[in-house]
Amino acid sequence: MISFESDYIAGAHPVILKNLAETNMEALPGYGTDRYSERAKEKIKRTIGREDLDVEFLVGGTQTNAVIISSMLRDFEGVIAAETGHISVHEAGAVEYSGNKVLTVREKDGKILPEVLRTYLEGFYADGNHEHMVFPGMVYISHPTEYGTLYKKSELYELSGICREYGIPLFLDGARLGYGLMSRETDVTLADIAEYCDVFYIGGTKVGALCGEAVVFTKGNKPAHFMNSVKKRGALLAKGRLLGVQFDTLFTDDLYFEISRHAIEMTEKMKDILKAHGLHFYIASPTNQQFVVLEDSLLKKLKEKVAVSFWEKADETHTVVRFAASWSTTDEDLRKLDAILDSILEEDKK
Amino acid sequence: MISFESDYIAGAHPVILKNLAETNMEALPGYGTDRYSERAKEKIKRTIGREDLDVEFLVGGTQTNAVIISSMLRDFEGVIAAETGHISVHEAGAVEYSGNKVLTVREKDGKILPEVLRTYLEGFYADGNHEHMVFPGMVYISHPTEYGTLYKKSELYELSGICREYGIPLFLDGARLGYGLMSRETDVTLADIAEYCDVFYIGGTKVGALCGEAVVFTKGNKPAHFMNSVKKRGALLAKGRLLGVQFDTLFTDDLYFEISRHAIEMTEKMKDILKAHGLHFYIASPTNQQFVVLEDSLLKKLKEKVAVSFWEKADETHTVVRFAASWSTTDEDLRKLDAILDSILEEDKK
Amino acid sequence: MISFESDYIAGAHPVILKNLAETNMEALPGYGTDRYSERAKEKIKRTIGREDLDVEFLVGGTQTNAVIISSMLRDFEGVIAAETGHISVHEAGAVEYSGNKVLTVREKDGKILPEVLRTYLEGFYADGNHEHMVFPGMVYISHPTEYGTLYKKSELYELSGICREYGIPLFLDGARLGYGLMSRETDVTLADIAEYCDVFYIGGTKVGALCGEAVVFTKGNKPAHFMNSVKKRGALLAKGRLLGVQFDTLFTDDLYFEISRHAIEMTEKMKDILKAHGLHFYIASPTNQQFVVLEDSLLKKLKEKVAVSFWEKADETHTVVRFAASWSTTDEDLRKLDAILDSILEEDKK
Amino acid sequence: MISFESDYIAGAHPVILKNLAETNMEALPGYGTDRYSERAKEKIKRTIGREDLDVEFLVGGTQTNAVIISSMLRDFEGVIAAETGHISVHEAGAVEYSGNKVLTVREKDGKILPEVLRTYLEGFYADGNHEHMVFPGMVYISHPTEYGTLYKKSELYELSGICREYGIPLFLDGARLGYGLMSRETDVTLADIAEYCDVFYIGGTKVGALCGEAVVFTKGNKPAHFMNSVKKRGALLAKGRLLGVQFDTLFTDDLYFEISRHAIEMTEKMKDILKAHGLHFYIASPTNQQFVVLEDSLLKKLKEKVAVSFWEKADETHTVVRFAASWSTTDEDLRKLDAILDSILEEDKK
Repeated sequence: MISFESDYIAGAHPVILKNLAETNMEALPGYGTDRYSERAKEKIKRTIGREDLDVEFLVGGTQTNAVIISSMLRDFEGVIAAETGHISVHEAGAVEYSGNKVLTVREKDGKILPEVLRTYLEGFYADGNHEHMVFPGMVYISHPTEYGTLYKKSELYELSGICREYGIPLFLDGARLGYGLMSRETDVTLADIAEYCDVFYIGGTKVGALCGEAVVFTKGNKPAHFMNSVKKRGALLAKGRLLGVQFDTLFTDDLYFEISRHAIEMTEKMKDILKAHGLHFYIASPTNQQFVVLEDSLLKKLKEKVAVSFWEKADETHTVVRFAASWSTTDEDLRKLDAILDSILEEDKK
Repeated sequence: MISFESDYIAGAHPVILKNLAETNMEALPGYGTDRYSERAKEKIKRTIGREDLDVEFLVGGTQTNAVIISSMLRDFEGVIAAETGHISVHEAGAVEYSGNKVLTVREKDGKILPEVLRTYLEGFYADGNHEHMVFPGMVYISHPTEYGTLYKKSELYELSGICREYGIPLFLDGARLGYGLMSRETDVTLADIAEYCDVFYIGGTKVGALCGEAVVFTKGNKPAHFMNSVKKRGALLAKGRLLGVQFDTLFTDDLYFEISRHAIEMTEKMKDILKAHGLHFYIASPTNQQFVVLEDSLLKKLKEKVAVSFWEKADETHTVVRFAASWSTTDEDLRKLDAILDSILEEDKK
Repeated sequence: MISFESDYIAGAHPVILKNLAETNMEALPGYGTDRYSERAKEKIKRTIGREDLDVEFLVGGTQTNAVIISSMLRDFEGVIAAETGHISVHEAGAVEYSGNKVLTVREKDGKILPEVLRTYLEGFYADGNHEHMVFPGMVYISHPTEYGTLYKKSELYELSGICREYGIPLFLDGARLGYGLMSRETDVTLADIAEYCDVFYIGGTKVGALCGEAVVFTKGNKPAHFMNSVKKRGALLAKGRLLGVQFDTLFTDDLYFEISRHAIEMTEKMKDILKAHGLHFYIASPTNQQFVVLEDSLLKKLKEKVAVSFWEKADETHTVVRFAASWSTTDEDLRKLDAILDSILEEDKK
Repeated sequence: MISFESDYIAGAHPVILKNLAETNMEALPGYGTDRYSERAKEKIKRTIGREDLDVEFLVGGTQTNAVIISSMLRDFEGVIAAETGHISVHEAGAVEYSGNKVLTVREKDGKILPEVLRTYLEGFYADGNHEHMVFPGMVYISHPTEYGTLYKKSELYELSGICREYGIPLFLDGARLGYGLMSRETDVTLADIAEYCDVFYIGGTKVGALCGEAVVFTKGNKPAHFMNSVKKRGALLAKGRLLGVQFDTLFTDDLYFEISRHAIEMTEKMKDILKAHGLHFYIASPTNQQFVVLEDSLLKKLKEKVAVSFWEKADETHTVVRFAASWSTTDEDLRKLDAILDSILEEDKK
């Protein structure tokens, strides 16, 4: 059995485990005030090339989205997201649990197009009744999106401009940011993201860490007493070193980028294999998640040997599934996939 | 510099790190559905000796308190806690953030005495206006308490009886449970706790894990779709294996109890050292936290060489500080403490 | 200046004011425990013809929606509503403020069609990832809808059946219920609503009262200690008599129905006047709200003499406005409207 | 049967009802944008003598407390209140429902003494762990308090000074403000309150209105889009005229003060009657609420003829009850009370 079920099927990159072990018995203060957390923050700022950033570590993605959104919105505001946005659908209502509304807008391949955002904002303020409506107070995008797609630099520039025009922050969920930055089809750099977004995070959980997301505030806009807001939401890790050591490792010797590049290389090979077997892609994704439409009887056979994720029903007899590569995917995994597909399709032909 | 600042100054017990490393590259499903999480749950149930328990893992203590309390209370209820309870004071209002009131009652050495609980409940229902008050819907105790003290078996029995009489669950915060169970002055076993409490947790963060708390529901009373409630509160860890492997390790070969016993042994030696230097204890604690009243000038000198926790001001010139031993405390640490105290007090006499 | 701006432009029906005055100096207990509130509840139950109902009074519509939804949903659930539902758009996020998600579904003329509901529910449970999604835990409909349209009896029957199949309550927002029940184009009675819905309310604010909504629980399903839940949400009126006397009056001698019928008669005459002036209806509404598409220059002139509500922009040069008749609309109002339209359109022709 | 049960046993002052009737059929816009609401706001500002105030109307006291506190606190803050404060005990956890903690401090006769406040604030910032605690972000006092007592002008001045020193607002709950201002034992004026407090409200529900509280923001500190915050909390009244006309009436010809003075006169007579019958006062209250300790057998007889409020048990055989006079209390009520006490005590002697 091999698995392309998700990009969090393995533990941590081995260098992370090594560093956790090496620092394990050092006595360190808690709650992110340790030296490794400090060092990791410095390295992230240096990597981006800006000293004026504020970096904070949190444990997971849904938690990060809820903490950021609920601590940055004002009382009369909600957050704009694509209808397919992770916060709109797959976070069990965590944003609403914090008392805030997700204002959904139409998506295109998982993205909010600048013109859609502009139309929404213009429409909102044109509506005479808007004092009884939730004000748009933030824009949430993910990069890569839930469909593995990427914003172009020009799109981020435009979204950012619209947000500034309306005085609301642009928040980028980078749970899979590494895979987006290392895509062969992107013109967006980490520095661009720090320039265009008011707040974003660099995902660790899905890019080589056991857990952890690094939130970056880019405009001196970290909420006052942020640690208290984090604690209040049950999101403050006592042993902050666990996050500090991991991000310190990921941002040493470009490890974060190297392992992301590896994942992209594995993905490209995986795409070739899937294509070579005549499989149909649901959407063109330039990152590590590939969405494939499979005939249900084929899927049934495949699942006996390969773990993939159910995505949605395509029609009565077909299903969209996700094949995810990651930092932990090996050539061996791909060889096995190739062979399994060979045998299943061969059998199918008979 | 040596540290008795807390019981979470070190990383994880080495066996945990070893097991994390050994299982690291296995492809496992997420969100706690992996085999290690399953195995850990089984081992915990076997250790307690009851098959009918439900065990779930969460990341940290405040998070666990907020999740349990908010998912188990009914709309008209709040949770009773000691005035000094962790949820009352040191969780940044996490319970209130979930929309629920903490109903504080008088404490004695950090504990809620059965008669105090009974008086509160009787008084509440005697009050003709109680429809405008928050109903007592759960009792929260910690064992050991914030002051390191322990409930006697008879007290737990009584508290439990009162709770059943009033139809409300008894919830025990066991963030430091191991140290309580291994205390030389306790008559309470893990099985007793499972019998008397409706829900409790076995703390990992402070007893050898990098993070993690094992929640035990003892009456078939795990809230429906509990994973969804956890996700909604941003508390669901994607790589549930991180918790599974840790608790699997802690509940193999009695590791959890062994390392707790070690901490208690170190504590007893530490108490002897502190006493031998004529230091005054603020409270008699039979567990790993020791509260000592220090003259401020002495404290100033001590802090240059030993990390301890500020607890509270005792008076104008004295401060209560906490010395915590833990699974990671060594004889070497204690020898150093002894020597440092010698030299500081020597100096002081001159 | 005449006003068709809304159905809450006037105070209360004169009989209500008379009864408030007559009972004004009686010493009565607070919080809805007075004899008028009791009497009003009895009369509502008698009108519906069922003794097993629970009736409670609240002050306003958004408040009622938030109280009902948040006190009846379970932790893992959200409420299904039409994309155009009042709770989805025009309540400033009150449902989300209570921590709950509004799950929007496609609407047709403001209604949720049974097949849309069934598809949504089937799709939800077919999705393998639904443990990370908000569970559908209630269906919210309004009758009349925000567009003045009505459910047919057969549609309510079907919606009700689907809800029971899935074990979730059907909640009907009857802020304008009187106008729906007295429509010339309905086959739905108040008894039908009590049969098909698990909870609904009979709107007072928009049907002759100064304020007030009568919530009816139809299945012995009033949440425990409901008064406490109401108080907790800041929704408990100290002088419950204000609501009690009003509903006692409205449900004496069929006043609620009489004034609703009057509003419908006025609406039909108003429709004739609007049609006679060649105005175009945006939607066919059988109740007291009429949505008309006006050329912007015409609207500009109209607004100098007639208050109407902006609804939405139809296109670059046209606007949808709402003309609302109500219990307080008079023949004199309509004569004036007719004359004003005559003069404006006359002028326009020149 | 006569009633001294509360100060909200009657409807509205007759002039209010007259004005509601006279304006009843005027077509007015909703949500507090009508001319009567505007006029009432102007009159309140004129009465206080300051043009720079912002006045808003809400329906009830608990609602007002929850709206003000939750819309003014920052994320990391809670509100300080006396242990006996209305928000601490008798509002069913409405403040906590909004996600915020009530930080209770010791009270003296229902009041927070300036030195107690100062000690609390100094202690909070002295505590090295306060980043894990809820920050004090507002001070809530009531005037009169829940025990009918009043702050001296010098106390308000001091509390205000401490609040400014710490940069947090002072919020005064004036549910019974009229009775406080008209007390024979006060040196506090309405202008003083506007000077010392950052926000307060003038209670209508308990001082002659059917419902309604007038919130006054004194420092240009009304939250942005306050109407939206009100709507979001289900607290926006559609027919704002109901509040506007009532406060317009109460602040015309000093009606608010006249009826409050009447209540105080009635209270003084009532106190004389109670004293003349040898009854013991639980606390010295200079306002309309009088707390009397009664022997239980006496109370039993009294309750057959006079409605009073249960307050608390004094001891095994005695109970504290509240006698409340109000704007609606008559000399006839007092004569009856006198006679009833005569007869009960006479009987008792036998």
